[in-house]
Amino acid sequence: MSNTMTAPAKVKRTPVALNGVNTPTLLATINAVGAQPELAKFQFRAKSRWVSGTHSQSTMYGFFGAGGEHEHILPYKADGDHPAVLCGGDAGPTPVEWVLHALASCLTAGIANIAAARGIKLNKVESVVHGDIDLRGILGLSKEVRNGYQKVAITFSIDGDATPEQLEQIVQQSKARSAVYDIITNGIPVEIAVQANGRA
Amino acid sequence: MSNTMTAPAKVKRTPVALNGVNTPTLLATINAVGAQPELAKFQFRAKSRWVSGTHSQSTMYGFFGAGGEHEHILPYKADGDHPAVLCGGDAGPTPVEWVLHALASCLTAGIANIAAARGIKLNKVESVVHGDIDLRGILGLSKEVRNGYQKVAITFSIDGDATPEQLEQIVQQSKARSAVYDIITNGIPVEIAVQANGRA
Repeated sequence: MSNTMTAPAKVKRTPVALNGVNTPTLLATINAVGAQPELAKFQFRAKSRWVSGTHSQSTMYGFFGAGGEHEHILPYKADGDHPAVLCGGDAGPTPVEWVLHALASCLTAGIANIAAARGIKLNKVESVVHGDIDLRGILGLSKEVRNGYQKVAITFSIDGDATPEQLEQIVQQSKARSAVYDIITNGIPVEIAVQANGRA
Repeated sequence: MSNTMTAPAKVKRTPVALNGVNTPTLLATINAVGAQPELAKFQFRAKSRWVSGTHSQSTMYGFFGAGGEHEHILPYKADGDHPAVLCGGDAGPTPVEWVLHALASCLTAGIANIAAARGIKLNKVESVVHGDIDLRGILGLSKEVRNGYQKVAITFSIDGDATPEQLEQIVQQSKARSAVYDIITNGIPVEIAVQANGRA
């Protein structure tokens, strides 16, 4: 592709709403957080309850951020279960499929925001995510096999009013600023506490 | 607590269905995979499509494992979006909240399976997950701040017909064999490919 054309990303422009993104508000928000870094501290939360067998349900409702408490429009609920072939009830996606959804939704949101900030109209963004796992890890059949995915691969199909290079760069920038990509590629510290109410 | 009582986990017993877990089938499955390790190779998948703004929707339906292709009972769909305070449409949980759900659902499924295998009846398993994140990372405002969570903390409240120590050990064993706990604490390799369909 020719690089002689002026890249839209480098044109000085007044930000306008694009791709369903309120670009002026988004950029104003980033500036506000830049001026007052304590606004950047967020805490997201989920509550989960066991239903039966390997089936549980989480609720994601309240969270802290931008200096105060917030609530989603609705208390969003989601199920998790093991599939029938793994002796589960298949009442919802498996926990490891939820990781794939988290990754795709994070990268896709970033693509839309970044494209809007660069003044590039998107027509389509689709992705397919594959996660390869050897269950000898979680089944306790091998000490050499890890519990989690060996590898995850995500392929984006993106269509927009820009050159293929510019569209590819948007995906790369989304990766560079993705919270979920960072979490699942670099790992994060997780603390587990237990309040046990037994019979003794 | 006294450790002089016989721990149910150590009693030789015929496995029976418990906690909604078909324990005999679960143990037979583990034995079958142990005898034929290629059955342990699974691939989970999600397809995602951008809707508008930061809103996307994933579908989790087909997967490979135990030597063949499988489908969930339904093509499970899930939304992801950024909340209003981050200029999103709040059409679903945020991608980082989905990570919390994945973790809670994985550990909870493991708790139910392990308790059943140990002959321990559970009455209640609930958890609360908190993830702390400094958005200066994803907003590109600081190179010192990571994109993902600084820390995740999950607290289980578990009630069952066993000693508190036995219940605590079940949670610890679930952690030791959790796919999602491994993924988000140790990290996994993620490949991103792009098929860009632009105007040039």
